[in-house]
Amino acid sequence: MEKDTHTTKIEVRYAETDQMGVVYYSNHFVWFEVARTDFFRSRGLDYGRIEKEERIFLPVAEATCRYKLPVTYGNPVEVVTKLSEVGNSRLVFDYEIRQDGKTAATGSTRHAFVDERGRPVTMPDYIREGLKKAAFLSHP
Amino acid sequence: MEKDTHTTKIEVRYAETDQMGVVYYSNHFVWFEVARTDFFRSRGLDYGRIEKEERIFLPVAEATCRYKLPVTYGNPVEVVTKLSEVGNSRLVFDYEIRQDGKTAATGSTRHAFVDERGRPVTMPDYIREGLKKAAFLSHP
Amino acid sequence: MEKDTHTTKIEVRYAETDQMGVVYYSNHFVWFEVARTDFFRSRGLDYGRIEKEERIFLPVAEATCRYKLPVTYGNPVEVVTKLSEVGNSRLVFDYEIRQDGKTAATGSTRHAFVDERGRPVTMPDYIREGLKKAAFLSHP
Amino acid sequence: MEKDTHTTKIEVRYAETDQMGVVYYSNHFVWFEVARTDFFRSRGLDYGRIEKEERIFLPVAEATCRYKLPVTYGNPVEVVTKLSEVGNSRLVFDYEIRQDGKTAATGSTRHAFVDERGRPVTMPDYIREGLKKAAFLSHP
Repeated sequence: MEKDTHTTKIEVRYAETDQMGVVYYSNHFVWFEVARTDFFRSRGLDYGRIEKEERIFLPVAEATCRYKLPVTYGNPVEVVTKLSEVGNSRLVFDYEIRQDGKTAATGSTRHAFVDERGRPVTMPDYIREGLKKAAFLSHP
Repeated sequence: MEKDTHTTKIEVRYAETDQMGVVYYSNHFVWFEVARTDFFRSRGLDYGRIEKEERIFLPVAEATCRYKLPVTYGNPVEVVTKLSEVGNSRLVFDYEIRQDGKTAATGSTRHAFVDERGRPVTMPDYIREGLKKAAFLSHP
Repeated sequence: MEKDTHTTKIEVRYAETDQMGVVYYSNHFVWFEVARTDFFRSRGLDYGRIEKEERIFLPVAEATCRYKLPVTYGNPVEVVTKLSEVGNSRLVFDYEIRQDGKTAATGSTRHAFVDERGRPVTMPDYIREGLKKAAFLSHP
Repeated sequence: MEKDTHTTKIEVRYAETDQMGVVYYSNHFVWFEVARTDFFRSRGLDYGRIEKEERIFLPVAEATCRYKLPVTYGNPVEVVTKLSEVGNSRLVFDYEIRQDGKTAATGSTRHAFVDERGRPVTMPDYIREGLKKAAFLSHP
Protein backbone atom coordinates (compact mmCIF):
# COMPACT_ATOMS: atom_id res chain seq x y z
CA MET A 1 0.00 0.00 0.00
CA GLU A 2 1.32 3.45 -0.87
CA LYS A 3 2.05 6.06 1.70
CA ASP A 4 -0.33 8.69 0.41
CA THR A 5 -3.32 6.43 0.78
CA HIS A 6 -5.56 5.88 3.76
CA THR A 7 -7.19 2.58 4.62
CA THR A 8 -10.61 2.31 6.24
CA LYS A 9 -12.00 -0.91 7.65
CA ILE A 10 -15.74 -1.42 7.24
CA GLU A 11 -17.84 -4.30 8.53
CA VAL A 12 -20.22 -5.56 5.87
CA ARG A 13 -23.81 -5.08 7.01
CA TYR A 14 -26.51 -7.66 6.47
CA ALA A 15 -28.62 -4.79 5.13
CA GLU A 16 -26.07 -4.32 2.36
CA THR A 17 -26.48 -7.82 0.91
CA ASP A 18 -29.09 -8.70 -1.68
CA GLN A 19 -30.79 -11.91 -2.74
CA MET A 20 -27.83 -12.81 -4.96
CA GLY A 21 -26.07 -13.41 -1.63
CA VAL A 22 -23.56 -10.62 -2.12
CA VAL A 23 -23.33 -6.90 -1.42
CA TYR A 24 -25.65 -4.87 -3.66
CA TYR A 25 -23.76 -2.69 -6.11
CA SER A 26 -24.82 0.76 -4.91
CA ASN A 27 -23.39 0.15 -1.45
CA HIS A 28 -19.85 0.35 -2.78
CA PHE A 29 -20.50 4.05 -3.34
CA VAL A 30 -21.66 4.47 0.25
CA TRP A 31 -18.40 2.85 1.36
CA PHE A 32 -16.47 5.23 -0.88
CA GLU A 33 -18.07 8.10 1.02
CA VAL A 34 -17.30 6.55 4.40
CA ALA A 35 -13.69 6.05 3.30
CA ARG A 36 -13.48 9.59 1.91
CA THR A 37 -14.68 11.09 5.17
CA ASP A 38 -12.15 8.96 6.98
CA PHE A 39 -9.41 10.13 4.61
CA PHE A 40 -10.28 13.74 5.51
CA ARG A 41 -10.18 12.82 9.18
CA SER A 42 -6.76 11.21 8.78
CA ARG A 43 -5.51 14.59 7.45
CA GLY A 44 -7.00 16.46 10.40
CA LEU A 45 -10.00 17.68 8.42
CA ASP A 46 -13.59 17.23 9.57
CA TYR A 47 -15.91 17.11 6.58
CA GLY A 48 -19.02 17.62 8.69
CA ARG A 49 -17.56 20.76 10.24
CA ILE A 50 -16.47 22.11 6.85
CA GLU A 51 -20.07 21.93 5.70
CA LYS A 52 -21.47 23.42 8.87
CA GLU A 53 -18.95 26.18 9.52
CA GLU A 54 -17.78 27.13 6.04
CA ARG A 55 -21.13 26.46 4.34
CA ILE A 56 -19.27 24.86 1.49
CA PHE A 57 -20.05 21.45 0.15
CA LEU A 58 -18.31 18.79 -1.87
CA PRO A 59 -20.96 17.04 -3.95
CA VAL A 60 -20.06 14.23 -6.31
CA ALA A 61 -19.83 15.23 -9.98
CA GLU A 62 -19.00 11.77 -11.28
CA ALA A 63 -18.67 8.31 -9.75
CA THR A 64 -17.49 5.02 -11.19
CA CYS A 65 -17.05 1.53 -9.81
CA ARG A 66 -15.65 -1.61 -11.45
CA TYR A 67 -16.75 -4.78 -9.73
CA LYS A 68 -14.19 -7.58 -9.86
CA LEU A 69 -15.24 -9.98 -7.13
CA PRO A 70 -18.45 -10.22 -5.14
CA VAL A 71 -18.24 -8.88 -1.59
CA THR A 72 -19.85 -11.16 0.96
CA TYR A 73 -21.20 -10.81 4.47
CA GLY A 74 -19.03 -12.14 7.26
CA ASN A 75 -15.61 -10.60 6.79
CA PRO A 76 -14.85 -6.87 6.83
CA VAL A 77 -13.71 -4.96 3.78
CA GLU A 78 -10.88 -2.48 3.59
CA VAL A 79 -11.24 0.58 1.44
CA VAL A 80 -7.94 2.06 0.33
CA THR A 81 -8.46 5.73 -0.58
CA LYS A 82 -6.09 7.86 -2.57
CA LEU A 83 -6.44 11.54 -3.48
CA SER A 84 -5.43 11.45 -7.13
CA GLU A 85 -6.17 15.02 -8.24
CA VAL A 86 -6.31 18.38 -6.45
CA GLY A 87 -7.56 21.33 -8.51
CA ASN A 88 -8.60 24.83 -7.47
CA SER A 89 -12.12 23.77 -6.74
CA ARG A 90 -12.13 20.07 -7.42
CA LEU A 91 -10.84 16.79 -6.05
CA VAL A 92 -10.64 13.30 -7.47
CA PHE A 93 -10.42 10.26 -5.22
CA ASP A 94 -9.52 6.70 -6.25
CA TYR A 95 -10.63 3.73 -4.20
CA GLU A 96 -9.87 0.07 -3.91
CA ILE A 97 -12.20 -2.23 -1.98
CA ARG A 98 -10.43 -5.29 -0.63
CA GLN A 99 -11.82 -8.36 1.12
CA ASP A 100 -9.86 -11.40 2.28
CA GLY A 101 -6.72 -9.95 0.74
CA LYS A 102 -8.17 -9.60 -2.75
CA THR A 103 -9.29 -6.60 -4.78
CA ALA A 104 -13.08 -6.79 -4.95
CA ALA A 105 -13.67 -3.46 -6.68
CA THR A 106 -11.98 -0.26 -7.76
CA GLY A 107 -13.56 3.09 -8.33
CA SER A 108 -13.28 6.83 -8.29
CA THR A 109 -15.28 9.93 -7.45
CA ARG A 110 -14.83 13.46 -8.76
CA HIS A 111 -15.98 16.35 -6.62
CA ALA A 112 -16.43 20.09 -6.96
CA PHE A 113 -16.47 22.55 -4.07
CA VAL A 114 -19.71 24.56 -4.15
CA ASP A 115 -21.50 27.05 -1.94
CA GLU A 116 -25.00 26.67 -0.51
CA ARG A 117 -26.53 27.64 -3.83
CA GLY A 118 -24.49 25.16 -5.79
CA ARG A 119 -22.05 27.68 -7.31
CA PRO A 120 -18.42 26.60 -7.66
CA VAL A 121 -16.07 28.03 -5.04
CA THR A 122 -12.32 27.89 -4.62
CA MET A 123 -11.12 25.37 -2.13
CA PRO A 124 -10.20 27.05 1.19
CA ASP A 125 -6.46 27.23 1.81
CA TYR A 126 -6.49 25.27 5.04
CA ILE A 127 -8.11 22.35 3.25
CA ARG A 128 -5.55 22.48 0.47
CA GLU A 129 -2.80 22.82 3.07
CA GLY A 130 -4.18 19.93 5.05
CA LEU A 131 -4.15 17.78 1.98
CA LYS A 132 -0.71 18.94 0.86
CA LYS A 133 0.89 18.51 4.25
CA ALA A 134 -0.27 14.97 4.34
CA ALA A 135 1.07 14.36 0.88
CA PHE A 136 4.43 15.89 1.89
CA LEU A 137 4.66 13.78 4.99
CA SER A 138 3.88 10.66 3.12
CA HIS A 139 6.42 11.30 0.34
CA PRO A 140 9.62 11.90 2.30
CA MET B 1 -60.56 -2.07 2.70
CA GLU B 2 -62.00 0.80 4.67
CA LYS B 3 -62.91 4.09 3.12
CA ASP B 4 -60.65 6.26 5.26
CA THR B 5 -57.57 4.43 4.13
CA HIS B 6 -55.33 5.05 1.18
CA THR B 7 -53.53 2.32 -0.73
CA THR B 8 -50.11 2.79 -2.32
CA LYS B 9 -48.59 0.31 -4.74
CA ILE B 10 -44.83 -0.12 -4.49
CA GLU B 11 -42.59 -2.26 -6.69
CA VAL B 12 -40.12 -4.23 -4.59
CA ARG B 13 -36.56 -3.21 -5.47
CA TYR B 14 -33.73 -5.67 -5.82
CA ALA B 15 -31.76 -3.33 -3.56
CA GLU B 16 -34.30 -3.97 -0.81
CA THR B 17 -33.71 -7.72 -0.64
CA ASP B 18 -31.03 -9.32 1.51
CA GLN B 19 -29.15 -12.60 1.40
CA MET B 20 -32.04 -14.36 3.17
CA GLY B 21 -33.80 -13.86 -0.19
CA VAL B 22 -36.46 -11.54 1.21
CA VAL B 23 -36.88 -7.83 1.83
CA TYR B 24 -34.64 -6.58 4.65
CA TYR B 25 -36.61 -5.48 7.68
CA SER B 26 -35.75 -1.77 7.75
CA ASN B 27 -37.17 -1.22 4.28
CA HIS B 28 -40.70 -1.68 5.56
CA PHE B 29 -40.24 1.63 7.37
CA VAL B 30 -39.14 3.32 4.15
CA TRP B 31 -42.31 2.03 2.52
CA PHE B 32 -44.35 3.38 5.43
CA GLU B 33 -42.90 6.82 4.63
CA VAL B 34 -43.64 6.48 0.92
CA ALA B 35 -47.21 5.45 1.73
CA ARG B 36 -47.59 8.28 4.28
CA THR B 37 -46.49 10.88 1.74
CA ASP B 38 -48.93 9.36 -0.73
CA PHE B 39 -51.70 9.51 1.90
CA PHE B 40 -51.02 13.24 2.29
CA ARG B 41 -51.10 13.66 -1.48
CA SER B 42 -54.43 11.83 -1.69
CA ARG B 43 -55.85 14.47 0.70
CA GLY B 44 -54.48 17.32 -1.41
CA LEU B 45 -51.54 17.92 0.92
CA ASP B 46 -47.94 18.10 -0.28
CA TYR B 47 -45.59 17.07 2.50
CA GLY B 48 -42.54 18.44 0.74
CA ARG B 49 -44.16 21.84 0.33
CA ILE B 50 -45.29 21.87 3.98
CA GLU B 51 -41.67 21.48 5.03
CA LYS B 52 -40.36 24.05 2.59
CA GLU B 53 -43.03 26.74 2.92
CA GLU B 54 -44.22 26.38 6.49
CA ARG B 55 -40.84 25.34 7.89
CA ILE B 56 -42.58 22.75 9.99
CA PHE B 57 -41.60 19.12 10.07
CA LEU B 58 -43.19 15.85 11.05
CA PRO B 59 -40.43 13.62 12.40
CA VAL B 60 -41.18 10.14 13.65
CA ALA B 61 -41.42 9.80 17.42
CA GLU B 62 -42.08 6.06 17.45
CA ALA B 63 -42.24 3.33 14.83
CA THR B 64 -43.23 -0.32 15.03
CA CYS B 65 -43.50 -3.13 12.54
CA ARG B 66 -44.73 -6.70 13.00
CA TYR B 67 -43.47 -9.03 10.29
CA LYS B 68 -45.90 -11.83 9.43
CA LEU B 69 -44.75 -13.09 6.05
CA PRO B 70 -41.55 -12.46 4.13
CA VAL B 71 -41.86 -10.00 1.25
CA THR B 72 -40.17 -11.18 -1.92
CA TYR B 73 -38.86 -9.58 -5.07
CA GLY B 74 -40.99 -9.96 -8.18
CA ASN B 75 -44.48 -8.87 -7.24
CA PRO B 76 -45.42 -5.40 -5.99
CA VAL B 77 -46.64 -4.71 -2.46
CA GLU B 78 -49.60 -2.60 -1.47
CA VAL B 79 -49.35 -0.45 1.61
CA VAL B 80 -52.71 0.40 3.13
CA THR B 81 -52.37 3.54 5.25
CA LYS B 82 -54.84 4.76 7.84
CA LEU B 83 -54.65 7.89 9.93
CA SER B 84 -55.63 6.51 13.30
CA GLU B 85 -55.08 9.51 15.59
CA VAL B 86 -55.11 13.28 15.07
CA GLY B 87 -54.01 15.40 18.02
CA ASN B 88 -53.15 19.11 18.26
CA SER B 89 -49.59 18.53 17.26
CA ARG B 90 -49.40 14.82 16.63
CA LEU B 91 -50.52 12.16 14.19
CA VAL B 92 -50.54 8.38 14.31
CA PHE B 93 -50.62 6.29 11.15
CA ASP B 94 -51.33 2.58 10.89
CA TYR B 95 -50.07 0.54 7.97
CA GLU B 96 -50.67 -2.84 6.43
CA ILE B 97 -48.22 -4.21 3.86
CA ARG B 98 -49.86 -6.71 1.52
CA GLN B 99 -48.32 -8.90 -1.16
CA ASP B 100 -50.14 -11.45 -3.33
CA GLY B 101 -53.35 -10.80 -1.41
CA LYS B 102 -51.87 -11.59 2.01
CA THR B 103 -50.87 -9.41 4.95
CA ALA B 104 -47.08 -9.47 5.08
CA ALA B 105 -46.65 -6.90 7.87
CA THR B 106 -48.50 -4.37 9.95
CA GLY B 107 -47.08 -1.33 11.66
CA SER B 108 -47.56 2.18 12.90
CA THR B 109 -45.72 5.46 13.20
CA ARG B 110 -46.34 8.30 15.64
CA HIS B 111 -45.36 11.81 14.64
CA ALA B 112 -45.10 15.24 16.26
CA PHE B 113 -45.20 18.53 14.37
CA VAL B 114 -42.08 20.56 15.19
CA ASP B 115 -40.43 23.74 13.96
CA GLU B 116 -36.92 24.03 12.56
CA ARG B 117 -35.44 23.89 16.03
CA GLY B 118 -37.34 20.78 16.97
CA ARG B 119 -39.88 22.52 19.24
CA PRO B 120 -43.45 21.19 19.17
CA VAL B 121 -45.90 23.30 17.19
CA THR B 122 -49.63 23.14 16.70
CA MET B 123 -50.72 21.55 13.45
CA PRO B 124 -51.74 24.24 10.93
CA ASP B 125 -55.52 24.45 10.37
CA TYR B 126 -55.39 23.68 6.68
CA ILE B 127 -53.62 20.42 7.36
CA ARG B 128 -56.14 19.46 9.99
CA GLU B 129 -58.95 20.52 7.64
CA GLY B 130 -57.43 18.59 4.78
CA LEU B 131 -57.31 15.49 6.89
CA LYS B 132 -60.83 15.99 8.27
CA LYS B 133 -62.38 16.76 4.90
CA ALA B 134 -61.03 13.56 3.53
CA ALA B 135 -62.43 11.65 6.45
CA PHE B 136 -65.84 13.30 5.94
CA LEU B 137 -65.87 12.58 2.23
CA SER B 138 -64.93 9.00 2.76
CA HIS B 139 -67.62 8.34 5.41
CA PRO B 140 -70.79 9.48 3.61
CA MET C 1 -36.84 10.53 -26.66
CA GLU C 2 -35.81 7.68 -28.93
CA LYS C 3 -38.03 4.76 -29.72
CA ASP C 4 -35.71 2.07 -28.42
CA THR C 5 -35.70 3.52 -24.95
CA HIS C 6 -38.01 2.90 -22.05
CA THR C 7 -38.99 5.53 -19.51
CA THR C 8 -39.68 4.74 -15.86
CA LYS C 9 -41.25 7.22 -13.47
CA ILE C 10 -39.96 7.09 -9.90
CA GLU C 11 -41.17 9.13 -6.94
CA VAL C 12 -38.26 10.52 -4.95
CA ARG C 13 -38.29 9.11 -1.43
CA TYR C 14 -37.55 11.20 1.63
CA ALA C 15 -35.19 8.39 2.65
CA GLU C 16 -33.15 9.09 -0.47
CA THR C 17 -32.33 12.68 0.44
CA ASP C 18 -29.35 13.67 2.56
CA GLN C 19 -28.49 16.67 4.71
CA MET C 20 -27.34 18.61 1.63
CA GLY C 21 -31.07 18.70 0.85
CA VAL C 22 -30.76 16.63 -2.32
CA VAL C 23 -30.78 12.97 -3.27
CA TYR C 24 -27.68 11.15 -2.05
CA TYR C 25 -25.46 10.01 -4.91
CA SER C 26 -25.65 6.25 -4.47
CA ASN C 27 -29.42 6.25 -4.93
CA HIS C 28 -29.06 7.05 -8.61
CA PHE C 29 -27.66 3.55 -9.02
CA VAL C 30 -30.67 2.06 -7.24
CA TRP C 31 -32.89 3.94 -9.69
CA PHE C 32 -30.84 2.58 -12.58
CA GLU C 33 -31.67 -0.91 -11.34
CA VAL C 34 -35.37 -0.10 -10.97
CA ALA C 35 -35.39 1.32 -14.50
CA ARG C 36 -33.45 -1.67 -15.86
CA THR C 37 -35.95 -4.12 -14.38
CA ASP C 38 -38.73 -2.04 -15.86
CA PHE C 39 -36.98 -2.08 -19.24
CA PHE C 40 -36.93 -5.89 -19.11
CA ARG C 41 -40.62 -5.90 -18.17
CA SER C 42 -41.44 -3.61 -21.11
CA ARG C 43 -39.88 -6.27 -23.39
CA GLY C 44 -41.92 -9.05 -21.80
CA LEU C 45 -39.02 -10.29 -19.69
CA ASP C 46 -39.24 -10.81 -15.94
CA TYR C 47 -35.82 -10.43 -14.36
CA GLY C 48 -36.89 -12.01 -11.08
CA ARG C 49 -38.16 -15.10 -12.88
CA ILE C 50 -35.00 -15.36 -14.97
CA GLU C 51 -32.98 -15.58 -11.77
CA LYS C 52 -35.32 -18.03 -10.11
CA GLU C 53 -36.08 -20.35 -13.02
CA GLU C 54 -32.93 -20.19 -15.12
CA ARG C 55 -30.56 -19.76 -12.18
CA ILE C 56 -28.66 -17.20 -14.18
CA PHE C 57 -27.82 -13.76 -12.89
CA LEU C 58 -26.87 -10.43 -14.32
CA PRO C 59 -24.54 -8.76 -11.83
CA VAL C 60 -23.07 -5.34 -12.53
CA ALA C 61 -19.47 -5.36 -13.78
CA GLU C 62 -19.12 -1.59 -14.02
CA ALA C 63 -21.30 1.38 -13.17
CA THR C 64 -20.86 5.09 -13.80
CA CYS C 65 -22.94 8.17 -13.07
CA ARG C 66 -22.33 11.81 -13.99
CA TYR C 67 -24.27 14.22 -11.82
CA LYS C 68 -25.36 17.39 -13.58
CA LEU C 69 -28.11 18.82 -11.42
CA PRO C 70 -29.18 17.94 -7.90
CA VAL C 71 -32.35 15.85 -7.65
CA THR C 72 -34.76 17.11 -5.01
CA TYR C 73 -37.64 15.67 -3.06
CA GLY C 74 -41.11 16.69 -4.20
CA ASN C 75 -41.29 15.97 -7.90
CA PRO C 76 -40.82 12.56 -9.50
CA VAL C 77 -37.89 11.68 -11.71
CA GLU C 78 -38.00 9.90 -15.03
CA VAL C 79 -35.29 7.43 -15.88
CA VAL C 80 -34.84 6.91 -19.62
CA THR C 81 -33.16 3.55 -20.21
CA LYS C 82 -31.50 2.44 -23.41
CA LEU C 83 -29.87 -0.89 -24.14
CA SER C 84 -26.71 0.26 -25.87
CA GLU C 85 -24.78 -3.01 -26.28
CA VAL C 86 -25.79 -6.66 -26.56
CA GLY C 87 -22.98 -9.20 -26.55
CA ASN C 88 -23.03 -12.98 -26.19
CA SER C 89 -22.96 -12.82 -22.46
CA ARG C 90 -23.03 -9.13 -21.71
CA LEU C 91 -25.29 -6.10 -21.82
CA VAL C 92 -24.66 -2.39 -21.47
CA PHE C 93 -27.41 0.00 -20.45
CA ASP C 94 -27.35 3.78 -20.67
CA TYR C 95 -29.53 5.92 -18.46
CA GLU C 96 -30.70 9.48 -18.24
CA ILE C 97 -32.32 10.76 -15.06
CA ARG C 98 -34.66 13.68 -15.70
CA GLN C 99 -36.50 15.92 -13.26
CA ASP C 100 -38.70 18.89 -14.12
CA GLY C 101 -37.81 18.50 -17.79
CA LYS C 102 -34.05 18.72 -17.24
CA THR C 103 -31.28 16.14 -17.35
CA ALA C 104 -30.15 15.65 -13.77
CA ALA C 105 -27.73 12.79 -14.39
CA THR C 106 -26.56 10.32 -17.00
CA GLY C 107 -24.97 6.96 -16.44
CA SER C 108 -24.39 3.45 -17.59
CA THR C 109 -24.06 -0.07 -16.26
CA ARG C 110 -22.28 -3.03 -17.82
CA HIS C 111 -23.45 -6.52 -16.97
CA ALA C 112 -22.31 -10.08 -17.54
CA PHE C 113 -24.58 -13.13 -17.44
CA VAL C 114 -23.26 -15.63 -14.90
CA ASP C 115 -24.42 -18.87 -13.32
CA GLU C 116 -24.90 -19.50 -9.61
CA ARG C 117 -21.17 -19.92 -9.15
CA GLY C 118 -20.34 -16.70 -10.89
CA ARG C 119 -19.08 -18.28 -14.13
CA PRO C 120 -19.91 -16.48 -17.37
CA VAL C 121 -22.73 -18.02 -19.38
CA THR C 122 -24.16 -17.29 -22.82
CA MET C 123 -27.32 -15.24 -22.78
CA PRO C 124 -30.38 -17.50 -23.34
CA ASP C 125 -31.92 -17.11 -26.80
CA TYR C 126 -35.33 -16.01 -25.59
CA ILE C 127 -33.77 -13.11 -23.73
CA ARG C 128 -31.78 -12.08 -26.79
CA GLU C 129 -34.90 -12.50 -28.93
CA GLY C 130 -36.97 -10.52 -26.49
CA LEU C 131 -34.48 -7.70 -26.61
CA LYS C 132 -34.11 -7.87 -30.41
CA LYS C 133 -37.81 -7.99 -31.08
CA ALA C 134 -38.30 -4.87 -29.12
CA ALA C 135 -35.51 -3.15 -30.98
CA PHE C 136 -37.04 -4.20 -34.31
CA LEU C 137 -40.48 -3.00 -33.34
CA SER C 138 -39.16 0.32 -32.22
CA HIS C 139 -37.13 0.98 -35.39
CA PRO C 140 -39.75 0.69 -38.13
CA MET D 1 -23.89 0.44 31.66
CA GLU D 2 -24.83 -3.03 32.80
CA LYS D 3 -22.50 -5.97 32.52
CA ASP D 4 -24.74 -8.11 30.34
CA THR D 5 -24.84 -5.53 27.61
CA HIS D 6 -22.54 -5.00 24.71
CA THR D 7 -21.69 -1.60 23.23
CA THR D 8 -21.01 -1.05 19.55
CA LYS D 9 -19.58 2.18 18.18
CA ILE D 10 -20.90 3.23 14.77
CA GLU D 11 -19.81 6.23 12.69
CA VAL D 12 -22.82 8.06 11.28
CA ARG D 13 -22.75 7.95 7.48
CA TYR D 14 -23.63 10.91 5.31
CA ALA D 15 -25.86 8.51 3.37
CA GLU D 16 -27.89 7.99 6.53
CA THR D 17 -28.91 11.63 6.90
CA ASP D 18 -31.96 13.13 5.23
CA GLN D 19 -32.98 16.62 4.22
CA MET D 20 -34.19 17.34 7.76
CA GLY D 21 -30.46 17.34 8.57
CA VAL D 22 -30.65 14.30 10.84
CA VAL D 23 -30.43 10.53 10.48
CA TYR D 24 -33.45 9.09 8.66
CA TYR D 25 -35.57 6.94 10.94
CA SER D 26 -35.20 3.55 9.23
CA ASN D 27 -31.42 3.60 9.70
CA HIS D 28 -31.78 3.07 13.42
CA PHE D 29 -33.00 -0.43 12.59
CA VAL D 30 -29.94 -1.06 10.44
CA TRP D 31 -27.80 -0.02 13.40
CA PHE D 32 -29.76 -2.40 15.64
CA GLU D 33 -28.74 -5.20 13.27
CA VAL D 34 -25.11 -4.13 13.23
CA ALA D 35 -25.12 -4.02 17.04
CA ARG D 36 -26.90 -7.38 17.28
CA THR D 37 -24.29 -9.04 15.06
CA ASP D 38 -21.60 -7.46 17.21
CA PHE D 39 -23.33 -8.75 20.35
CA PHE D 40 -23.18 -12.27 18.91
CA ARG D 41 -19.51 -11.78 18.07
CA SER D 42 -18.78 -10.60 21.61
CA ARG D 43 -20.17 -13.96 22.82
CA GLY D 44 -18.01 -15.92 20.40
CA LEU D 45 -20.87 -16.50 17.97
CA ASP D 46 -20.66 -15.69 14.26
CA TYR D 47 -24.11 -14.95 12.89
CA GLY D 48 -22.98 -15.26 9.27
CA ARG D 49 -21.54 -18.70 9.91
CA ILE D 50 -24.67 -19.83 11.77
CA GLU D 51 -26.70 -19.04 8.67
CA LYS D 52 -24.25 -20.64 6.28
CA GLU D 53 -23.35 -23.77 8.23
CA GLU D 54 -26.48 -24.51 10.23
CA ARG D 55 -28.90 -23.22 7.58
CA ILE D 56 -30.91 -21.59 10.32
CA PHE D 57 -31.92 -17.98 10.28
CA LEU D 58 -33.04 -15.39 12.77
CA PRO D 59 -35.47 -13.09 10.98
CA VAL D 60 -37.09 -10.22 12.80
CA ALA D 61 -40.68 -10.85 13.92
CA GLU D 62 -41.24 -7.42 15.45
CA ALA D 63 -39.21 -4.21 15.69
CA THR D 64 -39.83 -0.97 17.55
CA CYS D 65 -37.93 2.25 17.95
CA ARG D 66 -38.70 5.32 20.06
CA TYR D 67 -36.91 8.43 18.84
CA LYS D 68 -35.98 10.85 21.62
CA LEU D 69 -33.32 13.09 20.09
CA PRO D 70 -32.24 13.53 16.50
CA VAL D 71 -28.98 11.83 15.59
CA THR D 72 -26.65 14.02 13.57
CA TYR D 73 -23.72 13.48 11.27
CA GLY D 74 -20.28 14.22 12.70
CA ASN D 75 -20.04 12.29 15.94
CA PRO D 76 -20.32 8.52 16.27
CA VAL D 77 -23.19 6.78 18.02
CA GLU D 78 -22.97 3.99 20.52
CA VAL D 79 -25.53 1.24 20.45
CA VAL D 80 -25.92 -0.55 23.76
CA THR D 81 -27.43 -3.99 23.14
CA LYS D 82 -29.00 -6.22 25.74
CA LEU D 83 -30.44 -9.69 25.29
CA SER D 84 -33.64 -9.36 27.29
CA GLU D 85 -35.40 -12.67 26.53
CA VAL D 86 -34.19 -16.13 25.55
CA GLY D 87 -36.88 -18.65 24.62
CA ASN D 88 -36.64 -22.08 22.98
CA SER D 89 -36.72 -20.64 19.54
CA ARG D 90 -36.89 -16.91 20.10
CA LEU D 91 -34.77 -14.01 21.29
CA VAL D 92 -35.60 -10.44 22.23
CA PHE D 93 -32.97 -7.71 22.11
CA ASP D 94 -33.23 -4.24 23.62
CA TYR D 95 -31.17 -1.36 22.28
CA GLU D 96 -30.19 2.11 23.32
CA ILE D 97 -28.68 4.49 20.79
CA ARG D 98 -26.48 7.13 22.40
CA GLN D 99 -24.77 10.15 20.90
CA ASP D 100 -22.73 12.76 22.76
CA GLY D 101 -23.57 11.08 26.06
CA LYS D 102 -27.33 11.29 25.60
CA THR D 103 -29.97 8.70 24.77
CA ALA D 104 -31.11 9.41 21.23
CA ALA D 105 -33.37 6.39 20.81
CA THR D 106 -34.39 3.13 22.40
CA GLY D 107 -35.82 0.10 20.70
CA SER D 108 -36.21 -3.63 20.58
CA THR D 109 -36.36 -6.50 18.12
CA ARG D 110 -37.98 -9.89 18.55
CA HIS D 111 -36.63 -12.83 16.57
CA ALA D 112 -37.57 -16.42 15.85
CA PHE D 113 -35.16 -19.13 14.74
CA VAL D 114 -36.38 -20.68 11.50
CA ASP D 115 -35.07 -23.10 8.90
CA GLU D 116 -34.60 -22.38 5.21
CA ARG D 117 -38.29 -22.79 4.57
CA GLY D 118 -39.29 -20.42 7.33
CA ARG D 119 -40.43 -23.07 9.81
CA PRO D 120 -39.66 -22.48 13.50
CA VAL D 121 -36.75 -24.48 14.87
CA THR D 122 -35.32 -24.90 18.35
CA MET D 123 -32.28 -22.80 19.04
CA PRO D 124 -29.10 -24.95 18.83
CA ASP D 125 -27.56 -25.71 22.23
CA TYR D 126 -24.22 -24.07 21.48
CA ILE D 127 -25.94 -20.80 20.74
CA ARG D 128 -27.94 -20.98 23.95
CA GLU D 129 -24.78 -21.97 25.82
CA GLY D 130 -22.84 -19.14 24.21
CA LEU D 131 -25.44 -16.67 25.31
CA LYS D 132 -25.73 -18.15 28.81
CA LYS D 133 -22.01 -18.33 29.39
CA ALA D 134 -21.67 -14.72 28.58
CA ALA D 135 -24.45 -13.84 30.96
CA PHE D 136 -22.82 -15.95 33.68
CA LEU D 137 -19.43 -14.39 33.16
CA SER D 138 -20.81 -10.94 33.26
CA HIS D 139 -22.80 -11.49 36.50
CA PRO D 140 -20.16 -12.88 38.81
